[in-house]
Amino acid sequence: MDMMVDAGLEVRIDPATNIIGRRSGTMGGPAILFGSHIDTVPDGGRYDGILGSLAGIECLETLEDAGLETRHPLEVVVFANEEGQSFRGLMGSRAMVGGLEASDLEQTDSHGRTLAEVLEEFGGDAARIDQVVQSGVRAYLELHVEQGGILESEDISIGVVEGIVGIRYLDIRVVGNSNHAGTTPMELRRDALVAASRFVVAVDETIRTGNFCRVGTVGKIEVHPNARNVVPGTVGLTLGLRDMDTERIDRTLEQLRTRALGIGEQSGVEFEIDDGERMEPANSDKQIVEAISKAAARLELSSRRMPSGAGHDAQMMARIAPMGMIFVPSAGGISHSDKEFTSPRDCANGANVLLQTILGIDEMSTEPT
Amino acid sequence: MDMMVDAGLEVRIDPATNIIGRRSGTMGGPAILFGSHIDTVPDGGRYDGILGSLAGIECLETLEDAGLETRHPLEVVVFANEEGQSFRGLMGSRAMVGGLEASDLEQTDSHGRTLAEVLEEFGGDAARIDQVVQSGVRAYLELHVEQGGILESEDISIGVVEGIVGIRYLDIRVVGNSNHAGTTPMELRRDALVAASRFVVAVDETIRTGNFCRVGTVGKIEVHPNARNVVPGTVGLTLGLRDMDTERIDRTLEQLRTRALGIGEQSGVEFEIDDGERMEPANSDKQIVEAISKAAARLELSSRRMPSGAGHDAQMMARIAPMGMIFVPSAGGISHSDKEFTSPRDCANGANVLLQTILGIDEMSTEPT
Repeated sequence: MDMMVDAGLEVRIDPATNIIGRRSGTMGGPAILFGSHIDTVPDGGRYDGILGSLAGIECLETLEDAGLETRHPLEVVVFANEEGQSFRGLMGSRAMVGGLEASDLEQTDSHGRTLAEVLEEFGGDAARIDQVVQSGVRAYLELHVEQGGILESEDISIGVVEGIVGIRYLDIRVVGNSNHAGTTPMELRRDALVAASRFVVAVDETIRTGNFCRVGTVGKIEVHPNARNVVPGTVGLTLGLRDMDTERIDRTLEQLRTRALGIGEQSGVEFEIDDGERMEPANSDKQIVEAISKAAARLELSSRRMPSGAGHDAQMMARIAPMGMIFVPSAGGISHSDKEFTSPRDCANGANVLLQTILGIDEMSTEPT
Repeated sequence: MDMMVDAGLEVRIDPATNIIGRRSGTMGGPAILFGSHIDTVPDGGRYDGILGSLAGIECLETLEDAGLETRHPLEVVVFANEEGQSFRGLMGSRAMVGGLEASDLEQTDSHGRTLAEVLEEFGGDAARIDQVVQSGVRAYLELHVEQGGILESEDISIGVVEGIVGIRYLDIRVVGNSNHAGTTPMELRRDALVAASRFVVAVDETIRTGNFCRVGTVGKIEVHPNARNVVPGTVGLTLGLRDMDTERIDRTLEQLRTRALGIGEQSGVEFEIDDGERMEPANSDKQIVEAISKAAARLELSSRRMPSGAGHDAQMMARIAPMGMIFVPSAGGISHSDKEFTSPRDCANGANVLLQTILGIDEMSTEPT
C-alpha cells in the first residue's frame, strides 16, 4: 500500500480488503484493471502473485516518470486471499464479481474466526461487501509466473494465456475383496489395488494419446486395509481432468468410464464413480490475446499461446470484464515451493509486456469483444 | 485345561505357558505331539487354532473311550500366543524349539508389561524358559482351517500340507517429481503413482504366468503428497512374495527388479528396492504327508496336497521334529473374521484324519525321515 502511495496513486482498501491504486485517465469512464495477489501458501515462493502485483505498480510508476497519460483510468489491484489458506480462495476477486456468498462470510479459520471478523481486522467491512462488486470494467490483465515447465522447456519468453482451464473432479471407489495374502491364490483374488492400478495406467495412456483432455491426474489414493499381508479390499482415488473445452472433458470422462467398466469386469471388482467438484473454463478475450501477442512481438520477445492449468483471480474477473493473462517462465516448472524462481530478465520482460498491453488496450477504438 | 483333565490326561503348563496334556504309551520314549493354539485376532473367528486344539483333546478322549493304547506317549499342545497380538507371534512354539530370544522376553505390550511379566501372570516362568525346549519329539501334527478358498472351490475335504511357504518382503520407494496437476503437461511429468501402478500390474501379471512364485502381493501403498491437485512425487509400497521354493522366490524377485528398472526408465522415475523381513519355508515330513493321505483315503475322504500360505506353530516345530499339517475347508476362504466358518462335518473329518494319522505314525517301525 505504501508503494502505491509512493507511486503517486490514489489508494483505497475496499470492503473485501482488496488494495487498489488508481491513476486517472484523460477520458474517464471505465478503468483498465491489472494486478494479482500477495498472499501465498505455506513454504511458498516469492513470485506467485507477487510478481503481478509489483509489476502493476511498476507500470504506473513508469507512466508517471515518463509523464504519459492514458485515456482510461488505470487501476492496479492486489486481490485478497487468492490462495485460500484460511477461507475459500479467489476471495477478493470473487467479491468483486458478486460471487461471494453469505456462507463465505460465516466460514471460520483454524482460530475459529469468521471471514467477516477477519475482514474487519484488516480494514474491510462485511456489511458493505456488496459495494465491492464492479461492472463496466474496460479490461482485466494479470501477469503471473507460469507454474509449469512449458515456457522453459521450449525456451520461450512470454506465454499468452488463451484461458483458464475447466476442472472436473471425480471420486472413485474400487471395491474388491480383502483376503489373506498368503492363503488366497491369484485366481481367487479380487484385488482392488491391482484394478485401481490398471485404471491409473489407463488414465495416463488415454490422456497421452492427445485425443482427449489436456491433463488428467490421479493425485490421491487410499487403500484398505493397507497391510502388507492382506490383499487390498477397497481403494478410493480421485481423478482430476482439465481442459479449456468442456465437451472434451466430457468425452474423456466417458472414455475413462468405459475403461473402468472393462477393468472391473476383467478383475472382478466394482468401480463406483461419483461426480466431485467442477469448475468451468474461463476464456481470455480474443482482442486482448492479440494485444498481448503484439506487445511481445514489439518488444522482440518470443511468445506462444497456452492455457493456464492453474486457477487465478483472472478467472473470476472474466465474469465481468474482457480478460487476459501474461505468463513468464518458472524455473524447472516449480511453484508453491521456496524453490520457485523466475529470472530478473523474465520478470522485467513480463512487466514490459504488461505495460505495452495496457497501452495497446487504452488505444483501442472499440471495446474488446 | 479343565477339558484335558476331564479327558484323563496328565496336564502341565510349561514356563512358556503352553498347555500340554499327556497320555502315556506302552513303549515310552519320544512323544507324538499335536495341537494348535486358542488365542485369536480382534474380531477373529471360532475355528482358527481352536479346531486343532479341541480336536487334539478329542482324539485322546476317543482313544481313552475305546480303551486303545499307543506305543508312543501322546501329547496334545495348546501353544501360547500364536497370533502375535501383544508380543511376537508363534511364541509358545518358538520357545519349544529354542528360538525365543532374550529381547523377546523384554518386549512390552500396549500396557507396558514385558513378556516376562505376562508369562508370570499366566503361570509361566521366564527364568525357566530354557526348560521348555524339546528335542527327540517323534512327530508334530496340526489340524487347522485352510484360511483360503482352494478346498471349497475344488470341493475337496482334506488338504495335505506339503509345507509352509517362505516369505520375502520388499520395501519399495518410487521417486518421481511432485508437480502442479494443472500446469504440468503429461510429457513433462515424472508421476510416481503412474509408475507404481505399472509395477503393481506387472507383479500381478508376472505371478499369474505360473512360471514364478505362488503368490505375490502389493498390500500397502502410501502416496506423497496425496492431494487431488498434485502430481504424485513419491510412492512407498510393500511387495510380499511367497512360495515353498526359495529359489523360485529369488527368480521372481529378479524378474520383478528387471520390470521395475524398465518401468523406471520409461517413466523417468527411480525404483529404490530394499529387502524387508524374510521367513524361510518349512517342509512337511514326506512320510507324514503319506500317512495323512492314507488316513484320508481310509476314511474315504477326498484330499489334495497343497502348501500353507499362512504361518503356523507347525513351522517352528518343523525345526525339531518331523512335521505334518491337515487342512479342512474354510467357507468362502474367509479367515481372521467373525464370518470364519467350517462345517461340523468338515471339522469331524479333520479330527478323524488327525486320529488316524496319529495311529499311523505310532505304528511306523522307523522314525519318519
